[in-house]
Amino acid sequence: MPSFIGSALRGNFFLMLGLWWSIKYPIKYILLKLDSGNPHSHWIHSMDIIEGTMKAFFALGGILAEQLVPGGPHLSLYDSKAQDWVQLMSWPHMTMYLFYGFSGVADVLVHTSLKLPVGLDRLLLALALFAEGFLFHFHDYKDAALTEHLYHLMSIAVFGAALCASLEVFQRDHTLLELFRASLFILQGSWFWQIGFVLYPPWGGPGWKQEEHGNKNFLTMCFFWHYAIVVPIYLLALACFRTAKLAGAGTEQWELTLSRGFKLPTF
Amino acid sequence: MPSFIGSALRGNFFLMLGLWWSIKYPIKYILLKLDSGNPHSHWIHSMDIIEGTMKAFFALGGILAEQLVPGGPHLSLYDSKAQDWVQLMSWPHMTMYLFYGFSGVADVLVHTSLKLPVGLDRLLLALALFAEGFLFHFHDYKDAALTEHLYHLMSIAVFGAALCASLEVFQRDHTLLELFRASLFILQGSWFWQIGFVLYPPWGGPGWKQEEHGNKNFLTMCFFWHYAIVVPIYLLALACFRTAKLAGAGTEQWELTLSRGFKLPTF
Amino acid sequence: MPSFIGSALRGNFFLMLGLWWSIKYPIKYILLKLDSGNPHSHWIHSMDIIEGTMKAFFALGGILAEQLVPGGPHLSLYDSKAQDWVQLMSWPHMTMYLFYGFSGVADVLVHTSLKLPVGLDRLLLALALFAEGFLFHFHDYKDAALTEHLYHLMSIAVFGAALCASLEVFQRDHTLLELFRASLFILQGSWFWQIGFVLYPPWGGPGWKQEEHGNKNFLTMCFFWHYAIVVPIYLLALACFRTAKLAGAGTEQWELTLSRGFKLPTF
Amino acid sequence: MPSFIGSALRGNFFLMLGLWWSIKYPIKYILLKLDSGNPHSHWIHSMDIIEGTMKAFFALGGILAEQLVPGGPHLSLYDSKAQDWVQLMSWPHMTMYLFYGFSGVADVLVHTSLKLPVGLDRLLLALALFAEGFLFHFHDYKDAALTEHLYHLMSIAVFGAALCASLEVFQRDHTLLELFRASLFILQGSWFWQIGFVLYPPWGGPGWKQEEHGNKNFLTMCFFWHYAIVVPIYLLALACFRTAKLAGAGTEQWELTLSRGFKLPTF
Repeated sequence: MPSFIGSALRGNFFLMLGLWWSIKYPIKYILLKLDSGNPHSHWIHSMDIIEGTMKAFFALGGILAEQLVPGGPHLSLYDSKAQDWVQLMSWPHMTMYLFYGFSGVADVLVHTSLKLPVGLDRLLLALALFAEGFLFHFHDYKDAALTEHLYHLMSIAVFGAALCASLEVFQRDHTLLELFRASLFILQGSWFWQIGFVLYPPWGGPGWKQEEHGNKNFLTMCFFWHYAIVVPIYLLALACFRTAKLAGAGTEQWELTLSRGFKLPTF
Repeated sequence: MPSFIGSALRGNFFLMLGLWWSIKYPIKYILLKLDSGNPHSHWIHSMDIIEGTMKAFFALGGILAEQLVPGGPHLSLYDSKAQDWVQLMSWPHMTMYLFYGFSGVADVLVHTSLKLPVGLDRLLLALALFAEGFLFHFHDYKDAALTEHLYHLMSIAVFGAALCASLEVFQRDHTLLELFRASLFILQGSWFWQIGFVLYPPWGGPGWKQEEHGNKNFLTMCFFWHYAIVVPIYLLALACFRTAKLAGAGTEQWELTLSRGFKLPTF
Repeated sequence: MPSFIGSALRGNFFLMLGLWWSIKYPIKYILLKLDSGNPHSHWIHSMDIIEGTMKAFFALGGILAEQLVPGGPHLSLYDSKAQDWVQLMSWPHMTMYLFYGFSGVADVLVHTSLKLPVGLDRLLLALALFAEGFLFHFHDYKDAALTEHLYHLMSIAVFGAALCASLEVFQRDHTLLELFRASLFILQGSWFWQIGFVLYPPWGGPGWKQEEHGNKNFLTMCFFWHYAIVVPIYLLALACFRTAKLAGAGTEQWELTLSRGFKLPTF
Repeated sequence: MPSFIGSALRGNFFLMLGLWWSIKYPIKYILLKLDSGNPHSHWIHSMDIIEGTMKAFFALGGILAEQLVPGGPHLSLYDSKAQDWVQLMSWPHMTMYLFYGFSGVADVLVHTSLKLPVGLDRLLLALALFAEGFLFHFHDYKDAALTEHLYHLMSIAVFGAALCASLEVFQRDHTLLELFRASLFILQGSWFWQIGFVLYPPWGGPGWKQEEHGNKNFLTMCFFWHYAIVVPIYLLALACFRTAKLAGAGTEQWELTLSRGFKLPTF
C-alpha cells in the first residue's frame, strides 16, 4: 500500500518550499542591496518566475502521483458496483495540489510581461492554504480519531501560514512574515512525514491505535517538538539575512523599516 | 415541489452580482482613468445607484418568491393546528434577502444627494453577509446531516466575503479585494445550484442520502472544484482590468499603489 | 419570580447606552464643528464624564438588583445545606455589570484631570464586552437547550461590539464604527427583552419548550428581525450626523476623512 | 503528590513576568524621557537583555522541575511495561516552558550585538503563547471535565496575550498593548494558582468533583473575578506611567501619539 510514500511526497513538497524560502529571502535582500536604486532586479524576477514554474510543475506531479500510484483511484471517482465513492484520501490531496498549481501559475503571471497586480501571488498562495485547511477540516474521518487529530494539528500550521500570506497581500517584503511563513511550511512538511510514520509505518505492521487517547496527547506535544526543531532553522535564516544586510551600506533606513514594521524599504 | 427552483433563484441572485462585479470593477477603473482629475465621475455614480436599485429590487423579488411560490409559507409563520412553526427553510432565506435589500437601499443613499458616509455601503454589505452566514450557522438541521454540511461549506464563501467587505469599509477601491469578493459571490451562487441538484434533483427522485459520509466527503471536494473553476474567471477579470490600466497613461502612481496596497489612488 | 424583571432591566441598560450613543455621536460632531480649532471642547468632555458616571452608577444598580431582588441570591454563593452553589444566573449577570462598572470608572479617569491614555476607555469597554461574551459562552446550561441558544445568539451582538470597541482603541472617532457599536448595543438590549418574554412570560405560564427545535429556528430568525428593525434607527442616526455636518462649514477635509477611513479629522 | 507545587510554580512564572512588566514599562518610558534624543538607551537595552536571560533561565528551571520533581516523569516518555505513555500533564507543561525559553533566547539575540530584527522578540513571545494555548486546547482530558474547563478558561488569557504580542510585532512600544499583555500574564499566573487549589488542594483531600456542573459555572465566574482584581493593578500601572510622563517635558507629541495610536513616539 503506497500511503507512506504519498505522505512522504507531500511532506517533501512542503519541506522543499519552506527550505527554499529560508534561503531565497536572505538572497533576495542581498541582491536588492547590491543594485540599490533598481528595485526590480532581473535576478529576483527570474527567481520568482522559476519558483512559480517549479511550484506548478511539482503540483502537477503531485496530482498525477495521487491518481496513478498503485492503489490510487486512477481517476475513477465513483464505484458504481459498490455504489460508493472511490476516495481513500487521494482525491482531497489531489485537490490540494491543484490549488498550489494555481498559485504557481499566478506567480508566473505576476512576474512576467502580463504583469497582473503584484499582491495576487500572495493572495493565491493564501487561497491554496485556506483551501487545504478547509478541505481537511470539513473531511469526515469517521472513526479514525487519530487521523483526524493528526490533520487537525496540521491545520495550525496551514491556517497560520494562510493568515501570514493574507497579511502579505497588503504588506509585501516584510522579512519576519516571509520567514515565519517559511517556518510554517517546514513544520507542515515534517508533519506530513510524521503522519506517514504514524498511520502507515514503512517497516510494515498496522498504524498506531486510533482509539488510545495517550497517542493523541503524545502527538499533540510531538507537533510542537517538530516546531521546536524548526525554530532554530528560522533563527539561522534570520541571522543569514542579518549578515547580508550588514554587508551592504546605508542600512539606517533599513533598520528603521524593519524595527517599526508597516513601512516599505526604499532601497 | 418548488425547492429546486428556489435554490436556483438564490444561485442566480449571487451569480449575477458576482459576474456583474467582475465586469464592473474593470470598467469603473477605465472610466476613472479617462476623466482623471475628476474623482467622482457621473458614470460611476450612476452605475452604483443602478446597482443598488437592482439589488434592492431583486431582493424584494426574492422575498416575494420565497413566500408566494406554491408550497411556500404564504406569510403564515405559525400553524396553530399543528402547533408548530411553518418554516421549510423559506423564512430564513427570506430574511437573508431582506438584508441584501437593506444593502441595496444603502448603496442608493450613499451615492445620491443624501450622501451618507461612503463606507456605509460596504458596511451594510458586510452586515448582509454576516447575517446570512449566522442564519445558516445557527439553524438547527435536525437529522439532515448532508443539508447541514452543504450550508456549512457555503459559509466559507459567505464569511470570506463578509470579512472582505469589512476590510473594504476601511480600504475602498482595492482592486484585489473587490474582485476577490466578486469571486466568492460567484462561488456562492454556483454552490446554491449544487445544493439544488443534491437535495432536490430536478429530474425527480429523492435527494442524495443524508447519512452516507461518502457523500459528505465528495461534496467537500466538490465545493473546492467549483472554486477551481471560478479562479480562472477571477484571473480573467484581473487581466481585463490590467488591459484597461495599460490603455490609460501616467500609470506609475497606479503601479505603486496596487503593488504596495493600503494607499489610495490619487487619480 | 423576578426573572422577567431582571431580563428587562438588563435590556434597558443596553438599550439606554445604545440609544444615548445614537444621539451623542451626532451631537459630539456638531459641538466639535462649532468650536473648530479647539479639539478638546469642555462640552464634549463633560458629556464623556457624565456618561462614565452614569454607566458606573447604573452598573452598581444592576449589581444590587441582581443580588437583592426577591428570589435573588442575596450575596450567598454556596448553600452548605444543599451542598451546591447558589446561582440562578444572577451571579454571572452581576459579574457582567461589574466590568461595565470598571468601564464607567475608566471613562471618568480618562477624561478628568488624572488623564490616563485616551484609548483606555475603549479598551475597558472592549474588556467588559469580551468578559460578558465569554461568561455566557463558558456557562453550562445543562439541558436548557433553548436558553443556551438564546445566549449564543446574543453573543453575536456582544462579540461584534467587542471587536468594534477593540478597533476603536487604535482608531478613535470613526463615525461608522461608533454608530455600528451603538446599533449592536440596541440589538443586545432588545434581545434581553426577548429572552425575558421567551423564558419567563410576564403573563404567567411556563417559558417556551426547551427541546423543540422549531423554537430554536424561529428565534434564530427573530434575532435578525430585531436587527432588521435596528438598522433603520442606525441609518437615521447617520442621517442626523450628516445633517449636522452639512450645517457646519469647511467640510471638504471631513468628506475625505470619512470616506477614506483610517485618518483622523483635523478639526 | 507534587501537583500543587507544580501548578504554583507555573503560576509564579507568569505572575513574575506580568508584575515585572507592570513595573518595567513605566520605568522604560521614564528612562527614554530623561535621555531624549537617544532612542537606544543603554539602560533599557540592559533591562531587555537581563529580562531575556532571566526568562530563559526560569524556563530551564521550569523544564527541570516538571521532569525531576518526585512523581514527575524523570525524562521517561513511554512505559514499555504498561504499554502506555508516561505523561501526567508534566510533558506538555515542559514543552510550554521550552517555547518560553526560546522567547528568552530571542530577547537576548535581538538586543545584543547580533542584532536580529527587533520585532522578533515579540514574534517569539507570540509563538510561545500560541504553542501553550494549542497544547492545552488539543490535549485530551478524557473524563476530567473540570480540568478541561479550567484550562479552556485559561486559554482566554493565553490567546488574548498571543494576539496582543502579535500586534506588537507590527506596532512596538504601544503602552496600552504592553500593559494589557502584562495584565493577561498576571491573570494567567493567578489562574494557575487557582487550578492548583481546585485540583490538588494543598490541605489534602481530593480535588473538586469533576462532574458537577455547578463547579464549572462557579469557576467561569471566578476566572473573571480574578481579572476584576487584576484590572485595578493595571490601572495603577498606567497611572505610574502617566506620572512618569508628566514629570518629563515636551509631552505634546506624546499625548498625540498615545491617544491616536498607530504612530511611534519620536522621543
